[in-house]
Amino acid sequence: MKQLLIASTSTVHGSGFLDYLLEALKIHFKTVDTILFIPYARPGGRSHEEYTKLVQNAFSKIDKTVKGIHEYDNPKDALKSAQGIFIGGGNTFVLVDQLYKNDLVGELKTVIESGTPYLGTSAGSNICGLTIGTSNDMPIAYPKSFKTLGLVPFNINPHYLDPDPGSTHMGETRETRIQEFHHFNSQPVIGLREGSYLEVIGSKIRLKGVLNARVFEKNKTPYEIKSESDLSDLN
Amino acid sequence: MKQLLIASTSTVHGSGFLDYLLEALKIHFKTVDTILFIPYARPGGRSHEEYTKLVQNAFSKIDKTVKGIHEYDNPKDALKSAQGIFIGGGNTFVLVDQLYKNDLVGELKTVIESGTPYLGTSAGSNICGLTIGTSNDMPIAYPKSFKTLGLVPFNINPHYLDPDPGSTHMGETRETRIQEFHHFNSQPVIGLREGSYLEVIGSKIRLKGVLNARVFEKNKTPYEIKSESDLSDLN
Repeated sequence: MKQLLIASTSTVHGSGFLDYLLEALKIHFKTVDTILFIPYARPGGRSHEEYTKLVQNAFSKIDKTVKGIHEYDNPKDALKSAQGIFIGGGNTFVLVDQLYKNDLVGELKTVIESGTPYLGTSAGSNICGLTIGTSNDMPIAYPKSFKTLGLVPFNINPHYLDPDPGSTHMGETRETRIQEFHHFNSQPVIGLREGSYLEVIGSKIRLKGVLNARVFEKNKTPYEIKSESDLSDLN
Repeated sequence: MKQLLIASTSTVHGSGFLDYLLEALKIHFKTVDTILFIPYARPGGRSHEEYTKLVQNAFSKIDKTVKGIHEYDNPKDALKSAQGIFIGGGNTFVLVDQLYKNDLVGELKTVIESGTPYLGTSAGSNICGLTIGTSNDMPIAYPKSFKTLGLVPFNINPHYLDPDPGSTHMGETRETRIQEFHHFNSQPVIGLREGSYLEVIGSKIRLKGVLNARVFEKNKTPYEIKSESDLSDLN
């Protein structure tokens, strides 16, 4: 049975890496001693080792060991034997490029669908959707495909940002960008504000965290949903 | 001899489409009666016809006729016979996807290098650089390649935005994104603020408009350059 937490961000303003999620992670990873971490998104270009150390420091607070996938000779075997998996944020294009280059997309989907508990934040959440077509990131790498894991039947927009009514900047708002997406794509998009996350247990999908999320469906006016809303039928 | 204006935006806050550029465009397109417009970036998903009408309205103010490339049976022939070319903003991925699908990338480069005056704004400026790897846009289409025209030997970041010191949002700042780009790519990047543009005449590249621009070179601290700065040697 699938068990995923798909979070908008690793870090909310004013607290440490993963801090706001730790209580939920204790439950999510309750049967897990060692978490396999995939550092491929490399936020700020940091190395796999540095990023894994940051993640280890956070998970130490709930007594979990972390191993980076780069520490294994065979990353596919690492996925197969993982008790739990975390993919953190950074650049979604770099992450997806590395997942394809290491031929891990299929295996990752298989092990998560078989029940290996998964946590994604930001870029690691984007890839749970059908494509990375609603990423906010700069396209600094060219992956073989924008198709991703499809663990939920829609797309994720992490770090969702409401329009700033005082702005004089002429760049598109997030809402405009997602509406443009729907001129060329049909799947729904969930705009997850920082602090929100989706909990997926089997076929049940629920919005968690204190904030509302914003749902974009093709040819519909975008709408808000409250925390604890059931999204299992959105597709 | 190449003649390009590469502008951050079509529109500055508080004025109409292209208004702030009209005086420069009178000179830039002084030998041109009819401008070939390429509406492929489709801002807000608008149709080629609607977008071309908007552009015709703006160019009417300086007595130019506009024809959309979609009005021609053979878009490659349209490029070959164009007196002047304008590619406007919208979504860079959609634009590049359409340029590749219509097999226009090579011909566009050829005619601009042969001297057909060119104006790009936003997405139409991004493609003047080496790649679209520093686009701000959402990847709502998957183009065959991120490589673009290379009419200048660096990348463009249009709509450049300074970090907001009061922000509590955890998404990356523009500067962070461009610095991440340099972990995986080596070419310089010019952050063009709204209202700035580059003027390219032959091998001379100059910053125009009243604002400074921000230059990012790999392994260097980013720096500001003033209007009228010469960028001909940046590569």
